[in-house]
Amino acid sequence: MSVVPPLNETNKSQASIQPLIDLVKQDMSRVNDLILEKAGSDVEMIPEVAKHLIDSGGKRLRPMLTLAAANMCGYDDTTSAGHVKLAMAVEFMHTATLLHDDVVDESDMRRGKLAARMLWGNQASVLVGDFLLGQAFRVMVDVGSIRALDVLSTAACVIAEGEVLQLSVAQNMKTTVDDYMQVIRSKTAALFAAACEVGPIIAASDEAKITALRDYGMELGNAFQLIDDALDYGGSAAALGKNVGDDFREGKITLPVIMAYERGSEEDKAFWKRVMEERKDVTDGALDFAMGLLKKTNALEDTLKQARTHGATAIAALDVFEDSAYKSALIDAVEFCIARGH
Amino acid sequence: MSVVPPLNETNKSQASIQPLIDLVKQDMSRVNDLILEKAGSDVEMIPEVAKHLIDSGGKRLRPMLTLAAANMCGYDDTTSAGHVKLAMAVEFMHTATLLHDDVVDESDMRRGKLAARMLWGNQASVLVGDFLLGQAFRVMVDVGSIRALDVLSTAACVIAEGEVLQLSVAQNMKTTVDDYMQVIRSKTAALFAAACEVGPIIAASDEAKITALRDYGMELGNAFQLIDDALDYGGSAAALGKNVGDDFREGKITLPVIMAYERGSEEDKAFWKRVMEERKDVTDGALDFAMGLLKKTNALEDTLKQARTHGATAIAALDVFEDSAYKSALIDAVEFCIARGH
Repeated sequence: MSVVPPLNETNKSQASIQPLIDLVKQDMSRVNDLILEKAGSDVEMIPEVAKHLIDSGGKRLRPMLTLAAANMCGYDDTTSAGHVKLAMAVEFMHTATLLHDDVVDESDMRRGKLAARMLWGNQASVLVGDFLLGQAFRVMVDVGSIRALDVLSTAACVIAEGEVLQLSVAQNMKTTVDDYMQVIRSKTAALFAAACEVGPIIAASDEAKITALRDYGMELGNAFQLIDDALDYGGSAAALGKNVGDDFREGKITLPVIMAYERGSEEDKAFWKRVMEERKDVTDGALDFAMGLLKKTNALEDTLKQARTHGATAIAALDVFEDSAYKSALIDAVEFCIARGH
Repeated sequence: MSVVPPLNETNKSQASIQPLIDLVKQDMSRVNDLILEKAGSDVEMIPEVAKHLIDSGGKRLRPMLTLAAANMCGYDDTTSAGHVKLAMAVEFMHTATLLHDDVVDESDMRRGKLAARMLWGNQASVLVGDFLLGQAFRVMVDVGSIRALDVLSTAACVIAEGEVLQLSVAQNMKTTVDDYMQVIRSKTAALFAAACEVGPIIAASDEAKITALRDYGMELGNAFQLIDDALDYGGSAAALGKNVGDDFREGKITLPVIMAYERGSEEDKAFWKRVMEERKDVTDGALDFAMGLLKKTNALEDTLKQARTHGATAIAALDVFEDSAYKSALIDAVEFCIARGH
């Protein structure tokens, strides 16, 4: 990775996702229709569970990226609506992952609402997730691009691999920064990368543009997850859609914790081991104390700095494209994600 | 469905899966190599869990069917080994389903060994299942047949739909024979059908042969599951690889129970409702009593009769093919599945 300048922090208050939303508005309305159609089933429980998640108000960032990437590359939408279908497939892959994640993490909440598993049980969450993943593949197959299928099916494997890796490094303070980066690259950034990469693929763009949009998505995804992991120790439940301290209570070892541990005194290290590994005294008081250590060691600030670096790399990847409203909206989307952390 | 003669019961003792095993032996050895390769990952837990399931000795009936169907239709194996890849993908789809099923059913045992979830937890079972499903799709994509991808991705959806339907009719004595048949057609027969159908598809066979092999697989799958559900009240754990009475203990409403309930006295009906719906007194004694009712009402015998009818339809579907060692082995495979129930 080349040396990249940090994002201009003075821009952060203006950063907005609105230009992206406006540009893909009409296409997203078709994506939303297709989502509702493909979440349908004669087996009642399937649309019920799917609708709960679909209505729970995610930003739909990933499908918007697919649409914007395809449109920026001049995708011809007169015949097959391939970009709409792939955008829908990407969102279903994401939704399936959320359903399975909640079971794995034993989460009670998702985006500020009760997790599906609390309403319909772990069983339905596992199986409806499988159904949505199957539907995602069917719709991708319908688009008919073997290369797009390759990118998205590979992403499906990498995501699952990342989730298993996260499971195996959980509750282990020996987790390194490299381990952590591999987890977030796999579980989060890989889908952002694939969502962006399939746009130029179906637009039959040249390899440089395909690589550029994959890199953009990957680095945006890394930045997004770093901010998310910082917010878990700083944001409010309303902004986050989950409870502050969820990662702490689940013993998930994220970058802020790794940094605070590395930089901490022997006493601090003993604290982190006790709560994260032995899972002893994982109380609200311990969370407050942990947040104090994160502040004292600059761990949160440095996590945000890392996110800014990945964000700047994402933006730099777009250099191969001419200026356009889409390019500008994709740059704004990065700055918006970063600004969440401030 | 046309009227079909029952299978010749005198054949059942000679019924053997051996001709099929012998015919696809060399190809299956390539499938097994590919299974081991594609179950690999740098994330240690993935090959561990996958190997546990792979080693636990399923018959690998589904991938054998794909190989036999492709070879019977003259698939040209000099270039891409598409039939080996699709056979592997079918087995991974099945393995992923088993991992998720065990979580959904809270099963302790699988094929006579501890279920993966008992060794690595529900979390790993969900995520490794997702990984194997992703790998299945990657390998299918590698084969490059959009039509085979369509068949298998549709099967993935239908299987998940069947599992959700099974969940929603569980512990409900209002379950009809039609509900039950829809469950087994979706959760079991759909994958048998897809496993057989993709063979003629990659061999570029005509539509009549594609339809014939899909129908063969579907009816074989129906027969297979009917026998399995009968065995749950009759076989030994050793023959079955699971415990007798598992369905009973989980409150799964299968055809033998539906028949015994319909044919039972008011007292019998009250018993079924108490154990299957209210889940009261689900003891070994109750299981013995249930088995007595199944015998008294001929429910097990009539379930086997249904299986024989589906088996005969499967065999009749092969009429469009000339006689060959493959055709004969596929006929024997049906009779072998039926004979398990006697």
